[in-house]
Amino acid sequence: MNNNKVNPSTLSGFMELLPQEQVKFNKIETVLKEVYGLYGFYPLDTPILEKSEVLLAKAGGETEKQIYRFLKGDTDLTMRFDLTVPLAKYVAKNYNELVFPFKRYQIGKVYRGERAQKGRFREFYQADIDIIGDGELNIINDAEIPSIIYQTFSRLGLNDFTIRINNRKILSGFFNMLNLKDKTVDVMRIIDKIEKIGEENFMTELQEIGISNESRSKILEFIKIKGTNEEVIANLKKFAGNNELFDQGINELELINKYIADFQVPKENYKIDLSIARGLDYYTGTVYETIFNKHPEIGSICSGGRYDNLAEFYTDKNLPGVGISIGLTRLFYVLNEMDYISNVNNSPADVLIIPMTEDLSYAINISSTLRNNKIKTQIYFEDKKFKNKISYANRTNIKYVLFLGEDEISEKKVTIKNMETGEQFNFSLDEAINMVKKNNEELSKETIINIDK
Amino acid sequence: MNNNKVNPSTLSGFMELLPQEQVKFNKIETVLKEVYGLYGFYPLDTPILEKSEVLLAKAGGETEKQIYRFLKGDTDLTMRFDLTVPLAKYVAKNYNELVFPFKRYQIGKVYRGERAQKGRFREFYQADIDIIGDGELNIINDAEIPSIIYQTFSRLGLNDFTIRINNRKILSGFFNMLNLKDKTVDVMRIIDKIEKIGEENFMTELQEIGISNESRSKILEFIKIKGTNEEVIANLKKFAGNNELFDQGINELELINKYIADFQVPKENYKIDLSIARGLDYYTGTVYETIFNKHPEIGSICSGGRYDNLAEFYTDKNLPGVGISIGLTRLFYVLNEMDYISNVNNSPADVLIIPMTEDLSYAINISSTLRNNKIKTQIYFEDKKFKNKISYANRTNIKYVLFLGEDEISEKKVTIKNMETGEQFNFSLDEAINMVKKNNEELSKETIINIDK
Repeated sequence: MNNNKVNPSTLSGFMELLPQEQVKFNKIETVLKEVYGLYGFYPLDTPILEKSEVLLAKAGGETEKQIYRFLKGDTDLTMRFDLTVPLAKYVAKNYNELVFPFKRYQIGKVYRGERAQKGRFREFYQADIDIIGDGELNIINDAEIPSIIYQTFSRLGLNDFTIRINNRKILSGFFNMLNLKDKTVDVMRIIDKIEKIGEENFMTELQEIGISNESRSKILEFIKIKGTNEEVIANLKKFAGNNELFDQGINELELINKYIADFQVPKENYKIDLSIARGLDYYTGTVYETIFNKHPEIGSICSGGRYDNLAEFYTDKNLPGVGISIGLTRLFYVLNEMDYISNVNNSPADVLIIPMTEDLSYAINISSTLRNNKIKTQIYFEDKKFKNKISYANRTNIKYVLFLGEDEISEKKVTIKNMETGEQFNFSLDEAINMVKKNNEELSKETIINIDK
Repeated sequence: MNNNKVNPSTLSGFMELLPQEQVKFNKIETVLKEVYGLYGFYPLDTPILEKSEVLLAKAGGETEKQIYRFLKGDTDLTMRFDLTVPLAKYVAKNYNELVFPFKRYQIGKVYRGERAQKGRFREFYQADIDIIGDGELNIINDAEIPSIIYQTFSRLGLNDFTIRINNRKILSGFFNMLNLKDKTVDVMRIIDKIEKIGEENFMTELQEIGISNESRSKILEFIKIKGTNEEVIANLKKFAGNNELFDQGINELELINKYIADFQVPKENYKIDLSIARGLDYYTGTVYETIFNKHPEIGSICSGGRYDNLAEFYTDKNLPGVGISIGLTRLFYVLNEMDYISNVNNSPADVLIIPMTEDLSYAINISSTLRNNKIKTQIYFEDKKFKNKISYANRTNIKYVLFLGEDEISEKKVTIKNMETGEQFNFSLDEAINMVKKNNEELSKETIINIDK
């Protein structure tokens, strides 16, 4: 490279996709938007930059280290590190204008200066949905959320996943019964790790924070309660009547379990799991995690839960909510690495017109008609050899090529070639349009994820 | 406000819309994406943060002052201030993977720390399309661009606009004929201002840079050449044969003028205007500006042009291109301020289900069926008074409310109320679905801009 040139590099930890990969990424994003839209969530967009005092109103030490924070003039600015804090600010700021329950989704980039490593991103998309109540929010909303998770993943083509559900009130209530109220946060944190560290280390860590042998065993036994959801609930009811919080948690979980079925989530896609704690999060009731059954090592691909108060750092209003988040960039990365992204149509156009005459008017007229029929159309204008033109169609995966020569023009026809099969037809324009439309209809049924292939 | 609370403010110059405004904004964005997609452009997404040395490889002093630049550890970072420089980096970096001509669109946020004032944004969306050739790019591409501009604005509902077209080779060639080659940049810059400063100041500024009276008059006369596009071209041809660059410019402009009509751009929506210079930009041939006929004072709402070499700061490859950019955030702001955004459907859902029984299973089942029919559906779950539930539908502009009481459940029917007309029907679910679908079909014909109302 000429030493006057700047190396055109992209920052480490910043995903920048090639065009055909970007098309796939966008297909996933489109499914998310469609599903969130079907459930009546508003789309929302908040700034990427905020005043540091706003974004860091709550944040703990870990977040502070990872953030992109800087001064511009006298203003202390931070790039958002999640979509929840901006939402809290937004709802507090616009409280009087919003209609509650306020349902919004936001798909946007967030920034965390984490140590660079494979599969970890410093700029990444989160896709969040939240339902915010004013003062209160019916627990049934917690049953709708798994339905949204299910619809999202099944429409992407993924079926072999499990939404794990728990309720922190049950865990907290149980710890209360064991007189471990003051250790709740620590125990939650350790429970959260059990899948990673194993039972032995789990017991050791509980011992290290001063939990007695008897309590440790009870906790382990409790979070390992297995069975159908109904069996687990029946089991939990044996502990009922000793602690109000615990009983409340069971009631909530039972209600959610009843309605999830009505929300058409198949039995095999959700499961009560008492070991789900979302240790470091701010949840106060229902919690969710979602795992690929074949790849639990990836961790949760969609997590969330119920919180008592969204915006306490900005307002005295009591704003309970429930929400979930998908780490979209990481999800895409993981699926791609595992080769689970289907070989879907990733071409920029449905049709490439190759004019075979010097005058381009006929080709241009045809392109307008195709586009008016919602057919994505390119015209190859460059003065190259025929094989280069064909190569352009092949390399961009454009399926149909329309050749327009003197014969086609005089007969008012088109020659259309299916680049996949090699078949070639001399068609009226209407026939060609119908062929492409039919193909597009087929393509619209493609799913982007194919984990079972 | 409690003094423990942080004021939930948004930075000055950062647009943050209320939900119903956001819906409108997104409708504009959707139209842009659809049109760009129909022309076969890849969607692209590049990082918002880049190494400063990459983004500032070219930038001049003005840009440097306005940028958001900071250190994170040892890394000198800058937030992108346009989408062109990241594109140049992208194409240089991925040259071997890309297929040329490379057509991409990108709609994304860019950052400029401009002085805060009404209607000026520091974070704003740009919507860019570019066609990049490898070594060369046929001039016909320059005729396709106005067609994309036309489709974009007319689909938004705007018809009363003019795409002004010029070719810098004509201006440069003309200055060469006047022996003003060394003053080309300055004269371009002054021409660019003529609409703002008026003819008198224009002449004064030309004098100040040392242009003779005779030349000043010739320049003014030249850029004021008026008439139909064909008349202007005929007029230009009178100057032909004296300068190669000038003649090349005329040929290009004539060719573009010929094909624009084939691209179905109505005569009244484009006009050759020799006073368009895009003074500070890097264009080398065709240039475009687009104005609202009734509001030229807004300035150009879509500008662009042809450039010889996209990525010279990163690569020795010769990458000519042509592109345009819409300042989407400013466009939305201006339209909104002028009350030109139509009263389009801005509700988050098509249907609000209000369950009138304690058990919610029927309501939830109905919601699933509606969503499976692509009907955006919310269920009102909150335990509020009836009037609050109705008020929720009214305030969110949800047009149809489904009441589901004991009668509806036992008869397997729904009561559907049109909140706009007050009409209420006892329907089968299928009948209700058809009613909503028919309404959605009507709504899909709505245009977002109504400048003529």
